[in-house]
Amino acid sequence: MITSTSNAKVKELVQLQKSSRRRREQSVFIVEGSRMCGEIPGDLIIERYVSETYMQQHANQDLNSIKTEVLADRVFAHVSDTKTPQGILCVVKMIIYTADEIINVSNPFILILDGLQDPGNLGTIFRTAEAAGVSGIIMSRECVDIYNPKVIRSTMGSIYRMPFKYADDLAGMIGRMKDRGVQIYAAHLDGRCSYDEADYSQKTAFMLGNEGNGLRREIADLADACIQIPMHGEVESLNVAVAGTVLMFEAARQRRRK
Amino acid sequence: MITSTSNAKVKELVQLQKSSRRRREQSVFIVEGSRMCGEIPGDLIIERYVSETYMQQHANQDLNSIKTEVLADRVFAHVSDTKTPQGILCVVKMIIYTADEIINVSNPFILILDGLQDPGNLGTIFRTAEAAGVSGIIMSRECVDIYNPKVIRSTMGSIYRMPFKYADDLAGMIGRMKDRGVQIYAAHLDGRCSYDEADYSQKTAFMLGNEGNGLRREIADLADACIQIPMHGEVESLNVAVAGTVLMFEAARQRRRK
Repeated sequence: MITSTSNAKVKELVQLQKSSRRRREQSVFIVEGSRMCGEIPGDLIIERYVSETYMQQHANQDLNSIKTEVLADRVFAHVSDTKTPQGILCVVKMIIYTADEIINVSNPFILILDGLQDPGNLGTIFRTAEAAGVSGIIMSRECVDIYNPKVIRSTMGSIYRMPFKYADDLAGMIGRMKDRGVQIYAAHLDGRCSYDEADYSQKTAFMLGNEGNGLRREIADLADACIQIPMHGEVESLNVAVAGTVLMFEAARQRRRK
Repeated sequence: MITSTSNAKVKELVQLQKSSRRRREQSVFIVEGSRMCGEIPGDLIIERYVSETYMQQHANQDLNSIKTEVLADRVFAHVSDTKTPQGILCVVKMIIYTADEIINVSNPFILILDGLQDPGNLGTIFRTAEAAGVSGIIMSRECVDIYNPKVIRSTMGSIYRMPFKYADDLAGMIGRMKDRGVQIYAAHLDGRCSYDEADYSQKTAFMLGNEGNGLRREIADLADACIQIPMHGEVESLNVAVAGTVLMFEAARQRRRK
């Protein structure tokens, strides 16, 4: 059992929790909690850490199938990203998707996210996208790291199943989609047409922008059409995950009726 | 200027931030931040508190129209619910709506929330509901307090504009709606019909349940129909604010086409 927070493995776990750069360098990320750890595709788990208390409470379970280290409760709490740790975390191999796995699929239904900053929003969008039948998500480099612990938690497991890619050259990636006949719709408060007047049953991508500033002009300009969601009352804008939900489920509705 | 955290007014502000009971007793709540304070209907503001720094930075503005107390920065931080306080908060009178103001309106479009616990979800639902044209929100007593500082922030101002009511007798309130011809739809994972097969253009109410457990059976049983949102992938459920968004904007879409 590891009892010191100055242990090299413990220090590495702390680094992996905090630093997106370290995660990228090592091509791994950390998943916490019983439920989220239970959903990890088996071949992606590199190692597992449990707290002493967790080990005692789960003495009957087979923890030997995966390489598992026990941490003193205090040490586990030090490593954990949550206030009330469940006592189990895994170091997981990143899944790397090619652009083709997102673009070159049957009747693509793609999300393009430009500069999303809020971890909860990004995670919720992944979860909602899987439910709506989205085939893949393209993100600009300015988006929050998908492997940020808060994002992982709010995906509720969709992170393991939804193909995604960070695009260094977002405009270039959008160009490739257009070459393949994908219709690109930018969600924009000044959009000319109401979102429910367009046809999303064929190859479709939705672009959603940053929480405060929306889509960058040069990215929005690449869209085939700007669409807006009609709003009542004095609401200035919708939360980006909410706006994405409206668009994704309208597309899902149309695609069911096709 | 108030310089001590043991000042009686300061102690009262801390109580109002923390305790929903104290807020109810006093029939007031606290709103923090420039933007949220700027949107408060003027006649609801009882008093305003600013930090010393805020006072200096806004020396040119007329802060005299409303009774304003200055707090030392350290005292303001003590009172604030946020990690990085903006330096302005208001004590605001609660708005009390009658049941009739929610039910007895033209072509009602109502949300019924049963045991929602997450402040961010409740706030987001208020904001989204205003945008979708919802006429009012009924909540069970088990729902998180709408005047919780986190809920207020995530409503983005909709709290001042969306009629709402906590129902001590939720079943009784639902009965009154049914007497008035409101069709009640319960969002349920086992719902028989897909949400987009029903007609929401007439008097409509949607029921949404607790994040973990969904709607209580005895409440769901009061609905005219149970509806579900078809989902792809391995997603077990949608976030409740996301599910509410799908339903509310489908109703809004239908109502625009009526």
